[in-house]
Amino acid sequence: MLSTTRRVEFRDTDAAGIMHFSAFFPMMESAEHELLRSWGMSVMPRERGPNDVTWPRVAATCDYLAAARFEDILAINVSVLKVGNSSVQYGFDFSRDETPIAKGTLTAVCCRLDTSGLTKVPIPDSVRQLMQG
Amino acid sequence: MLSTTRRVEFRDTDAAGIMHFSAFFPMMESAEHELLRSWGMSVMPRERGPNDVTWPRVAATCDYLAAARFEDILAINVSVLKVGNSSVQYGFDFSRDETPIAKGTLTAVCCRLDTSGLTKVPIPDSVRQLMQG
Amino acid sequence: MLSTTRRVEFRDTDAAGIMHFSAFFPMMESAEHELLRSWGMSVMPRERGPNDVTWPRVAATCDYLAAARFEDILAINVSVLKVGNSSVQYGFDFSRDETPIAKGTLTAVCCRLDTSGLTKVPIPDSVRQLMQG
Amino acid sequence: MLSTTRRVEFRDTDAAGIMHFSAFFPMMESAEHELLRSWGMSVMPRERGPNDVTWPRVAATCDYLAAARFEDILAINVSVLKVGNSSVQYGFDFSRDETPIAKGTLTAVCCRLDTSGLTKVPIPDSVRQLMQG
Repeated sequence: MLSTTRRVEFRDTDAAGIMHFSAFFPMMESAEHELLRSWGMSVMPRERGPNDVTWPRVAATCDYLAAARFEDILAINVSVLKVGNSSVQYGFDFSRDETPIAKGTLTAVCCRLDTSGLTKVPIPDSVRQLMQG
Repeated sequence: MLSTTRRVEFRDTDAAGIMHFSAFFPMMESAEHELLRSWGMSVMPRERGPNDVTWPRVAATCDYLAAARFEDILAINVSVLKVGNSSVQYGFDFSRDETPIAKGTLTAVCCRLDTSGLTKVPIPDSVRQLMQG
Repeated sequence: MLSTTRRVEFRDTDAAGIMHFSAFFPMMESAEHELLRSWGMSVMPRERGPNDVTWPRVAATCDYLAAARFEDILAINVSVLKVGNSSVQYGFDFSRDETPIAKGTLTAVCCRLDTSGLTKVPIPDSVRQLMQG
Repeated sequence: MLSTTRRVEFRDTDAAGIMHFSAFFPMMESAEHELLRSWGMSVMPRERGPNDVTWPRVAATCDYLAAARFEDILAINVSVLKVGNSSVQYGFDFSRDETPIAKGTLTAVCCRLDTSGLTKVPIPDSVRQLMQG
């Protein structure tokens, strides 16, 4: 579990005067990446090693509970909902003060990048332990 | 049902070399708006009338089946999956040639905008007929 | 003058593996808004008063000096370059460690929003004093 | 010279009710890419050849003349303003009906991508001829 905050920026808004529904997804991803960094991992390591894995998405969802507006400060909680053999699902809660704003999920699959492209592989044990925290 | 096409632009891609997962959502929305225009409606009429309704989103989902790349031409099919008393769910299929790329949904709620803000209202009959087309 | 930092997020990158040139502009805007907040102002006040002004853009420029990459932490300096009768030009410097990454400008015009739309007005003295620091 | 059109999408707008100033830049880039395709070129060829060049940006500018709104259809004209030894500057005019909306430029440098990274090279004669029309 990791908690972070995020200010709604002007580019996140739309002509309805609220944060655009699609803008929640990059925020989820950035919270996921912050969680990975807190585990000492990166989705895109600067120096590639032979055991590096990458995490393409297979699903994304978001339920919208209340509107967020320009300059709102959103609290975002990210947690691991499920760890499968090679997939992981993260859950995200957005709130402003005590008001729930949105709930989302991202599902990613563990893949090894080799000369033939991406191959689905089991999540390495060391990573699984971090995910099961 | 409406079918449209869309070329993946450079801004839609990310450093993994593929179309970013979040970029599918604005494309779904634009296909939805094209469907609304084909019915003579707009989500944001230029001149507001007393019976205008608006359609805030309550849910968005996407399943990713294969990667899309810069300059790919995607076929997008949008259809009405479900019409409730005041909500509508659209379904979207993205494909490239015969390859399925992604499947998504958007759920919106019919609201009237008055001085006290947004109020959920039943979908007007004329709109329901178009949706059940 | 205000200095802030910003991490390059995955959505900021493109298929060339670097931060997309267009992604610098929302970062400039967010630094400008942070500067305005440091002066006790907002480009979009929650409660509108009779003396509120707004700042539509008339020009934006950016020169790109070196590539920025995913997860880079960019230092952004924003300063007021010029204050005219009704316009203000901000300058932005992006750097990573001591490497200059980009230099940009935004020019905005002071306008009052009334029933007939936007009207260009002189920058209020209290704001001019903040801008001239 | 190439003329194209583009509908302002909801994601292009912001809470001021107009097209966000940063959204003009990806539209310029897409018009540039359409111009390159009309010459039989791509900024990112699917199959890399030994003589492939790439075009990182060194500058981008935009002057905003009038607001664009959701569902506006913008005409975009793109032309080559200047061809140097290794750089090219494109000019862009955005208009709606006869109303000028914005004018912009993008400057790109011709580079070869080899094992040591990007190296600035003279624009190949065949490309220069296309650019000088």
